[in-house]
Formats: sequence, structure tokens, C-alpha cells
Amino acid sequence: MRIVDIIQKKREKEILTDEEIRFLLENYQAGEVPDYQIASFLMAVYFNGMTTEELKVFTGTMIDSGETIDFPGVEKFLIDKHSTGGVGDKTTIALAPIFGALGMGTAKLSGKGLGHTGGTIDKFESIKGFKFSNSKEELIKIVNETGTGLMGQADTIVPLDKKLYALRDVTATVSSIPLIASSIMSKKLAVHADAIILDVKVGSGAFMKDLTEARKLAQTMYDLGKAFDRNIVCMLTNMDEPLGNAVGNSLEIVEAVETLKGNGPEDFTYLVEVLGAQALILKGDVKTLEEGIGRVKEVIENGEALKMLKKFIKGSGGNPDICDDYSLLNIAAETFEFNVDERGYIKHIDAEKIGKAAMMLGAGRATKDDIIDHSVGLIMHKKVGDQFEAGEALLTLYHQNNMRDEILETLRGAFVFSEEKVEKIPTILDMIG
Amino acid sequence: MRIVDIIQKKREKEILTDEEIRFLLENYQAGEVPDYQIASFLMAVYFNGMTTEELKVFTGTMIDSGETIDFPGVEKFLIDKHSTGGVGDKTTIALAPIFGALGMGTAKLSGKGLGHTGGTIDKFESIKGFKFSNSKEELIKIVNETGTGLMGQADTIVPLDKKLYALRDVTATVSSIPLIASSIMSKKLAVHADAIILDVKVGSGAFMKDLTEARKLAQTMYDLGKAFDRNIVCMLTNMDEPLGNAVGNSLEIVEAVETLKGNGPEDFTYLVEVLGAQALILKGDVKTLEEGIGRVKEVIENGEALKMLKKFIKGSGGNPDICDDYSLLNIAAETFEFNVDERGYIKHIDAEKIGKAAMMLGAGRATKDDIIDHSVGLIMHKKVGDQFEAGEALLTLYHQNNMRDEILETLRGAFVFSEEKVEKIPTILDMIG
Repeated sequence: MRIVDIIQKKREKEILTDEEIRFLLENYQAGEVPDYQIASFLMAVYFNGMTTEELKVFTGTMIDSGETIDFPGVEKFLIDKHSTGGVGDKTTIALAPIFGALGMGTAKLSGKGLGHTGGTIDKFESIKGFKFSNSKEELIKIVNETGTGLMGQADTIVPLDKKLYALRDVTATVSSIPLIASSIMSKKLAVHADAIILDVKVGSGAFMKDLTEARKLAQTMYDLGKAFDRNIVCMLTNMDEPLGNAVGNSLEIVEAVETLKGNGPEDFTYLVEVLGAQALILKGDVKTLEEGIGRVKEVIENGEALKMLKKFIKGSGGNPDICDDYSLLNIAAETFEFNVDERGYIKHIDAEKIGKAAMMLGAGRATKDDIIDHSVGLIMHKKVGDQFEAGEALLTLYHQNNMRDEILETLRGAFVFSEEKVEKIPTILDMIG
Repeated sequence: MRIVDIIQKKREKEILTDEEIRFLLENYQAGEVPDYQIASFLMAVYFNGMTTEELKVFTGTMIDSGETIDFPGVEKFLIDKHSTGGVGDKTTIALAPIFGALGMGTAKLSGKGLGHTGGTIDKFESIKGFKFSNSKEELIKIVNETGTGLMGQADTIVPLDKKLYALRDVTATVSSIPLIASSIMSKKLAVHADAIILDVKVGSGAFMKDLTEARKLAQTMYDLGKAFDRNIVCMLTNMDEPLGNAVGNSLEIVEAVETLKGNGPEDFTYLVEVLGAQALILKGDVKTLEEGIGRVKEVIENGEALKMLKKFIKGSGGNPDICDDYSLLNIAAETFEFNVDERGYIKHIDAEKIGKAAMMLGAGRATKDDIIDHSVGLIMHKKVGDQFEAGEALLTLYHQNNMRDEILETLRGAFVFSEEKVEKIPTILDMIG
């Protein structure tokens, strides 16, 4: 078997055998196949895709490149909820305690932010003293107590994905649906949760700008989950404006806490309710979305969800009092209100630009090695469909005296206004499963 | 400028700027861009091609990677005749002396054979003592005397092509029309001949199996020649059976000499006449193909062409008497007649398999480092359209007692027979220019 023949087969859109896919990936992992052959293979995949069967073997080989994780001694129904990333996406922070309060648990790898999108790790780390569990024993203990099992780092899980992703990043082969799907799903399938909920973000602030492409990705990941006999559902949700109002690490912690107190923004609250309800449906506890949403509302109203978040923060070395006294969080004291001279309705928001403005303030990383500032960010006051007056604040920036013209310029470019009334965007766009 | 953005632009079929193409190639040559980025770029080119303007800059940058060659002190009209390679292609050996006899000259790089196709260098080297000129002065002297200016080795000309080709070879990006065109044409354009005649071989023994694809390649190379203001014509010629009858180095020398004596095979003789006539047309000496063919026939009939070949062999250190006494050539004494039990007509010949059989005898190289045996090869007795009796020899193998079942098996697989009469294949399929 020669690598060049495998590349040529893929180039000619012939179907690769299981042996060919394993030969390619295993020898790449072993350092026997040079990057340049994999680079040309990945570009051929970019153009010709993979069949469901090819993708299953590809993903299976990725999983086999490292350890898999199960949770002995955990009785709870464990959910791996994954978002493809966006601006203001603090869903895990609110949802994991809700799962806990509903008697379920979370079992997932959390990521760091890059570019205009944030990461759950960074958000939790804005709480002083907070540390992710660094042993399996600690992790199992905290899942049993709080229902929240977030893994901060996992170099031993799907190490091949790290190697492949680094190559894709510099060879313009990131945005290939089967490669995205196998990268995400290999890490879901390596962690043995009882159910997988995928939240594919769609719109200006998401990796997938277009609903048709996002649907393809969602369907591909759903099919992969099913091919591995997993209990899975895939939601397509709106990222054509930031999710909720807060963007930036400490600010997003506050918004997640407020949501668990029943004071969350409408769109974010609804997303959390729907995803919570989906978990109950997958577990078999409820039959309808309505019933599930009712159960989620209950654990918010009776304070059980907030209690679970406090337990998780405490168990992770942080001070749970931050939930009641936000001054214990590090939030920038300097603020700046962004407004415009005209009046009208918000017609469109480029959420990526909002995310970039927050990143420029220091809330995110332009490159992997940047150090982020948890205190900075912004709060949206107006979203798509909202009316505003001339001079009224569209958003407030929280900064460390590092406001630059460039940031305001980016924000100005993020809004499209209209004189006529504009419809709000639905939070949930579609569902597969 | 980032390489990954250039790759992505090509992937998205956006048109690259001159600066982007030069940045990519110059930095690759300088060792500043890793192979894996170029590999992914080349695969994107495989799928998305290049515009005429992109290809012009790409080829120009290739040329600029090394030296160019001109011929000060040569008054003759110099032709660079290039074949894309095939089985039994001894055209240069007969044609260069014809150009010489017609008062013109040849100026070109000659290649070595690889796989089922042979190379002009190997064929001439079957003459004992033969050496290609190894200085520019020697080369100019021999062109002036004999009209034949073949360069055997030229690491300094388009060195980037060598680097790129080595990468293409292992990344399944060889068979891309713009990449083939730029590889061939950069080496033509780096040598300052007065006219370029391209002979694109089409059929079972050629790199291009299909006339439509071959036409695209021919048109692409023709357009490139014109973009560099060159006097150029491109012929599409038959390689759906070996050219002429002889395959193998010494045997092909004999056939080329016989052709200059007026005893050549019909197809090969006609090809040589047409290409000779095209040179006269490009030079402006004649207006019609008919007139040109007449002039070529003349220098064959009056022995001037053969005289030029002898001069060239002598000037290159070989013994010109080989042209009159073939026993001075190294030709294998052992022969084997290949026949079949049935009778009929030859319907199809897989010329690649004929070339492979000759290679297996030792006439060619399976890998670059193989040493070839100039003495072995085969002579076809029957070609497409010919009738044969059961047990009549279809071809004779010349071997060094190294006949193997594998070789006979390959030959059996090379023929398709028919009970009904079959048409012969035309030698010239099409022309661009």
C-alpha cells in the first residue's frame, strides 16, 4: 500500500477501504507519513468529501489514536453538550448546573477561546482560584456531587486530532465538513457520555455563516453519532447576533448566574430551556419539548440550578459567593457607551465583529499564546429588531483604559440599521434527531 | 502576505495576483515555505486550475528560478521539438539531423526514460563512446556543424521544476494540466530557440490517454508559448500503439537510421516528415505542409540527413560507422518470437504494456536509479489494422536470457484481436497553431 495511491484514489473520488484509511492515519500518527502527503490528502478531501462509511472509519481511527474516557461509579445520565462556538456563548455555564439539578450530569471536554469566539475554560477561569479537576478521581467526585464534569485539558484524548488540526490550520483545509465533523465527533465519541447534544451555531458570529452548510455539518455529525450507536440530537441555533447580551469572561459569568436566577436575556434563557428539555427527552424522562421546558423552568425557579453552580464553583476551588456579590469578580471599572447619531431599528449585527471588538479589548486571543483579560468585554443593549433613539447606547464596553479607534471602527461596521420595523431572529433554527 | 491565505484563495477559485504567485514560489525555492503548504496548494490547483494569466506568472517564476540559455554565434534557425513521451518514440534521433540538413538546428534539453517511456539520452548512449556536450562552447560548435544541439543535463535550468516535480510525484498532483504545462513549457522557454514544436502524444502508451484532455494540455501549452511571444505549433499525435516498430535503445537507433535511409516504418516516417515540414513553416521557408514534406523527403533521399546524423555521432565521441554496420551496436543476440494460437486482425494495442514489457527486459527504468540495458527491446511486426495468422510472430523480443512469464503475460494483455477487418489509426490526430 502506497500513500500516494491513497491520495490519488481520494482525488479521483473513489471510495477508500477501511485498511487504506487506517494505514494513512496510523502511519501519520507514528510519524511515518510526512505532513506534505497528508496536506495534499486533506485538500483532496476538502474537494471530494468522504462517504459515511469512510468518515466512520476515519473518525474511529482518530479515536483509537488516544485514550477513551468512561465514568465508573457515576450513576447519573451523562450528557455531552457541545457548541460549535460563537460570540457570547456561555451556555455550558448555565446548562451544566441545570442538568445537575435535574438529576443528570455533564461529561465533556471544554475548550479555550480563539479569535472572535470564547471558550468555557476561560470563562470559568475568570473566577479567582477556579481550577478544573486534574485527575479522573476528582472529576468523578465532582460529577457525582454537582452533575458538572468538565475536563479542562486532555492531551491524551484523540491526540491525532491535535496533529491534524495544526496541519489543517496552515494548509487551508479547516473548513471541510467531514474534517470538522470528525474532529468534533472524535472527541465526543472518545468520552462515553450517555447522550450527545450538538449545538451548531449559524450566522455572522459562527464558523458556519450559512444555514445550508450548517445543516450539512449537523447531518454529518448526527450520522456519525448514529454510526457509533450514540443517543444524539443536533440543534441549529442562531449566531447572527451575540447570544444573550454579555460578551467577555467575567461579564458572561454574571449573565449565566442571572439566568439561573430567572433574570436572563430572553434568547439565551430560551436556548438553555430547549437544550435542557432535549436532554430530558434523550434520557426518556419527558416526551415533549414543552414538558421538558417546564422542568427546566422549575429548577431555575426553585433555585436548585443555582445551588448546583455554587457547589461546582466551590468544588473547583472558587468562591461561590461571586454568584451573590459580583464585586468579587474582576470586572473592568472603565466603561464606554457606544451609540450613533441616527435613530431606527437594528436590522443586522455582524456578531463576528462584535466578538473581534471584545477580543481587541483583551477578552479573547488573536493567537494561541495571547493572555486574556477576564475583566473586559461588552454588554449589548440592543439586538436585531430593537428600536433605538439617536445617542442611545447600543452597547456598553468594559475596558482597562485601552479603548482604540480601531475598536469603535469595528463596532460601527458591525451594525446595519433600518428606518422600518425589523423582525427579531428566532433562537432555534432547526433540529436533526 | 500569508501562504495559507494564498492556498485558500486558490481553493476558492479566486484569481491569484502576480505578487501572490511569486511570493509563494520564490519563498518555496528559498526553503521558507514548507512542503506541506505547497502540497495542499498543488492539490487545490489540481481541482481549480489556473487562468492563463496566473499560469504565465507561475511559469515565468519557474523560469526565473534558474539560468536561461541562448546561443550566441549560432546563425541557424533553432527549433525546440518536444514530445510528451511514449513508447518507441525515437523522433529526435531522426528529426534533428533532418533539421540540420535543411539548414536549421535543434536546441533542446533531452531527458532520460522512466517507467514505460524511453528517453533520447538513453537511446543515444547506446552508441559506444557517445557523450553529450558538457560545455556551452562545445554545444554551440556542434550545433553549427551538425544542427543538433541536445543538452543532456541541466540542473541549473528551472531548478524549481525539479523540486516541485519531486513533491508532485508523492502527493498525487502530477496529472494536472496547468502543472504539466508549466513544467514542460518553463524548460522550453528557458532555452531560447527560435521556434517550439510540441508533440503531444495521445493514447494507451502516452501520459494523456484521452484526446479531449490532450487537446486541453496542448492548448494550454500553446497559449503559454504565445503569452511569452514564442513561435509555436502543437501537434497531437497517435500513441495508441508504439511509434514505428522498434522499442528499446539500440533497436530504436537502428530504426531511426533506417528511416534516414528511406526505409523507415510508415507511421514514424510520416511523423518525421510532418514535424520537419512544420519547422519549415515556422521558419517561413515554405507555406504548405505538402511543400514542407517534399523538402524533408529530399534530404532523406539525397542522404544529407543521414550525413548530419553521422557528423553528430562523430562529434559526440561515437563511431558513425554504426549507421552502416549495426553489428557495431550492442544488440542482444537472444530472440523470442511472440505469437498467439488464433488468427485475425489487431484491433487494439495497449502501448503502455508493450513499453512495460520492454522495461522488464531491461530497456527502461522502473525507478530513477535503475541501470538500463541498451541491447534489449522488441520489434513489432503487426500493428493496429494488420492481419495475422495463427503462430505468426506479432513481435520479436531481444533479450539477455532474462525472459520471464511475467513479460509474456504482460504482452498477452497488450493485444485485443478481432475477426473482422480493422482500420489503421491515423498518425496525426490534430494540430493547434
